[in-house]
Amino acid sequence: MLNFNYLIPTEILFGKEQISNLESKIEDYNRILFAWGGGSIKKNGIYEKVIDSLKNKTYFELSGIKPNPRLSSVKKGIRICTEDDVDFILAVGGGSVIDCSKAIAAGVYYPDDVWDLFMRKATVEKALPIGTILTLAATASEINASAVINNEETQQKLSITSNLLRPKFSILDPTYTMTVPRAHTAAGVVDIMSHVFEQYFDTTKGTYLQDRLAEGILKTCIKYGPIVLENPDDYEARANVMWAGSLALSGLLSFGKKGDFATHKIEHEVSAIYDLTHGIGMAILFPNWMKYVMHENIDKFVEFAHNVWDIPNMGEKKDIANLGIQKTREFFSSLDMPTTFFQVNISYEKYEEMATKAVYFGEIGSFKKLKKEDVLEILKLSL
Amino acid sequence: MLNFNYLIPTEILFGKEQISNLESKIEDYNRILFAWGGGSIKKNGIYEKVIDSLKNKTYFELSGIKPNPRLSSVKKGIRICTEDDVDFILAVGGGSVIDCSKAIAAGVYYPDDVWDLFMRKATVEKALPIGTILTLAATASEINASAVINNEETQQKLSITSNLLRPKFSILDPTYTMTVPRAHTAAGVVDIMSHVFEQYFDTTKGTYLQDRLAEGILKTCIKYGPIVLENPDDYEARANVMWAGSLALSGLLSFGKKGDFATHKIEHEVSAIYDLTHGIGMAILFPNWMKYVMHENIDKFVEFAHNVWDIPNMGEKKDIANLGIQKTREFFSSLDMPTTFFQVNISYEKYEEMATKAVYFGEIGSFKKLKKEDVLEILKLSL
Repeated sequence: MLNFNYLIPTEILFGKEQISNLESKIEDYNRILFAWGGGSIKKNGIYEKVIDSLKNKTYFELSGIKPNPRLSSVKKGIRICTEDDVDFILAVGGGSVIDCSKAIAAGVYYPDDVWDLFMRKATVEKALPIGTILTLAATASEINASAVINNEETQQKLSITSNLLRPKFSILDPTYTMTVPRAHTAAGVVDIMSHVFEQYFDTTKGTYLQDRLAEGILKTCIKYGPIVLENPDDYEARANVMWAGSLALSGLLSFGKKGDFATHKIEHEVSAIYDLTHGIGMAILFPNWMKYVMHENIDKFVEFAHNVWDIPNMGEKKDIANLGIQKTREFFSSLDMPTTFFQVNISYEKYEEMATKAVYFGEIGSFKKLKKEDVLEILKLSL
Repeated sequence: MLNFNYLIPTEILFGKEQISNLESKIEDYNRILFAWGGGSIKKNGIYEKVIDSLKNKTYFELSGIKPNPRLSSVKKGIRICTEDDVDFILAVGGGSVIDCSKAIAAGVYYPDDVWDLFMRKATVEKALPIGTILTLAATASEINASAVINNEETQQKLSITSNLLRPKFSILDPTYTMTVPRAHTAAGVVDIMSHVFEQYFDTTKGTYLQDRLAEGILKTCIKYGPIVLENPDDYEARANVMWAGSLALSGLLSFGKKGDFATHKIEHEVSAIYDLTHGIGMAILFPNWMKYVMHENIDKFVEFAHNVWDIPNMGEKKDIANLGIQKTREFFSSLDMPTTFFQVNISYEKYEEMATKAVYFGEIGSFKKLKKEDVLEILKLSL
C-alpha cells in the first residue's frame, strides 16, 4: 500500500427531499451563479425548488451547459462571475454541469486563459466555493476534486484536479435520477464501473482492502444496473447506484494505490472529436483495454473473474481471465450499450490523431504503460 | 436506504513516516495539550518525534491515560486546558487516549460537570480542535465523532457523539502498530470486526452497497488478523488492518442504516466494572448475541455465512446461519481470544447490575430490541 492523504470534506446530503436543506447550506453566500444544463430540471420540478431557495439572494443563471462541457461555457461563466461579483456557484445537473462549474470556480481567480490550467501551464491556487444538486449517477464529480472540459477549438478534452474544487456540499436525491432517459442511465452505470476498473486494475501490492471495497461497488452496479433500466422508479435501486457512483471515484478506492486511467484518456480523445456520451465510449473501449493488458498481471484478472463474476477458479488462468472480460462485455450489452465504434458511426480515419493526442503528456496508464502504438491497437480492437 | 448526511472531514495521513508532517499540521496552534498513555511511545521513539515537532510551541503533558479511560483523567485534562489556555489537543496513542482527549475537548467549553454530556443532560456545543497519532488499530476514534469514558465512581461507561469531536487530522503509520503486544493486536482485530457487525446486522432495507463494503472489511480482518499475529512486522498486513479499522467505524458502513450497537452497550457495562479489554469482551459476547437474535432475520445470517465465510447456500437456513456464527467463534479462538467470561474470571454475581445499567436509557439495539431480560440471557450464554 502506498502512503496517502485521505481527505473528503464534501458534505453529502443523501435521500428524499434533501433539497429542503439547500437554503441553510447557502446562507453564507449572497451572489450566486446558478449553473444548469438542458430543460430536464424544468420538467421534473427541481428548477422551481432551486429558484425558491434563491429567493433572498442575487443570482445569475448559466444554462445550456452540454455533455462534454465546452470551454466556451466555462469562459461565459467566468465572465458572469467576474462582472457580477459572484461568491458561490450552485451546479444543478450531472457531471458536465458540475465539471463546468468547477472550471469556472478555478478560472475566476486565474488571470490568464483558463485553458492554461488544463494544459498544465499553471495550477489552481484559489477557487470559488461550489455546491451541487446531482441529477445523474455517473461521474462522482459531486464528491471529487476533478473536472474534465472539452476545448471545442482544439478538439482536446482535458482534466484538472485540485482539492480546492471539491464541492462544499452535494445534494443527492435518488428520486431525481428516476426521470433520466434509459440510455443515459445505462451509460452512467458503465461510467461508474469504469471508474472502479481504473482503480482496481493496478499493480500496487498489498491493497487487499481497497480491492474488496471495489468489488462491492462493482457487484452493486451488476445487481442494480438491470433493475434501474427495468423499473426506473425503484428507489432502492436508484439509491444504491447513486451512492455507488459517488463512492466509486471519491478517492475511497484509490487511496494507497496508483490507479490507471489510460482508458479514460483514450475515451476523452474519442469524445473530444465525436461528442460521444462518455459511458458509451467506455463500454466500447474497456473490455478491449482488458484484453490488451491482461497478460501484464493475469492473477488480477483471475481475481476479478472469480470475485466479481463468480467464475470458478478452475482451468487455465487465461481462460478464467477471458471469461471475466467476456462477462463484462455481455453485461454492458445487456444494458443495450454498443460494443464497437462502428455501431456509433465512428470509423478509423481519426485513430492516428486520437492516439497522438492521448499520449500528449507522455505514456498513459500504469497497469501497462501505453505508448501511441498501444493506444492505436486498443482503438483498432474497438472498431 | 435511509436518508443520511455524509461528512468525514478528518484528514488521514496514512503511511510510513507521516509524522514528518506533524509540524505543518499544528502550525496554527500555540498552546498544546500532548495527551498520551503508558510508556510504549517512549520505547518505540514516537515520544521523541512528537517532542521535536513541539519544540516551538508551549506544551503541557497529560500522561498515564489508561485503557477504559477514566473520568478523572478527563477532569485533569480539562483543568490543564483551562488554566493554561490550551488551544489544541494532540492525542498520541490508541482509542483510549483519543477518547479521553475528545472528552477533554468537549469539557473545556462546558461550564458544569463534564459527565452531564455523557448522561445526556446537555449536548456538545463547542470543542477544542484535536489531532491524533494512532498507535493501535481498533476503535476508529481517530476518524469518528464519538468518545467512550469510564466513570470509575459510578462504574458507568458511557459515550458522547458530536461532529465537533472529529479530529482535524490523524496520522496513521502502520509501523507504529508493529510493537503492540500480541493480545492487544488480536483484541483490536476483534474490535474492528465487532464494529462491522454492529452495522451489518441491521434491519434497514435496500442497503446492498453498504453490506458489500462491510463484507470487504470483514474479509480483510479475516485474511490479515492471523498474519499480524504471526508476523507482527508485516507492513502490508498492518496497513490493511489499520485502514480497515478506521473505515469500519468512520460512518462509511452506517450511512443510510440504523445500526445496532446493543452488544457494545452490554460490553461497556462489563468493562466498566471489571476493567476488561474491550476487544476481549466483544469476542466473548458477539457470537452469543448472534445466536440470541438470529431468528429475527435469518436471511441476514445466511448472507453473512455465505459471503463472509464461504459457506455454501445448501440445507436449512438455520444450519447455515449457525455455521457462520460458529466460524466467527472459531476465528476469534484462533486469535487466542477467550470464549467465556469464566476464562477471564468474571462470574454471574453482577449480571443483574450490568443488565440493569445496559438499558438505563431504554431498550438497546435495533436488529432485536433488547430489554433487561434479553441482556441477562446473552450474559448467561457468555458465562
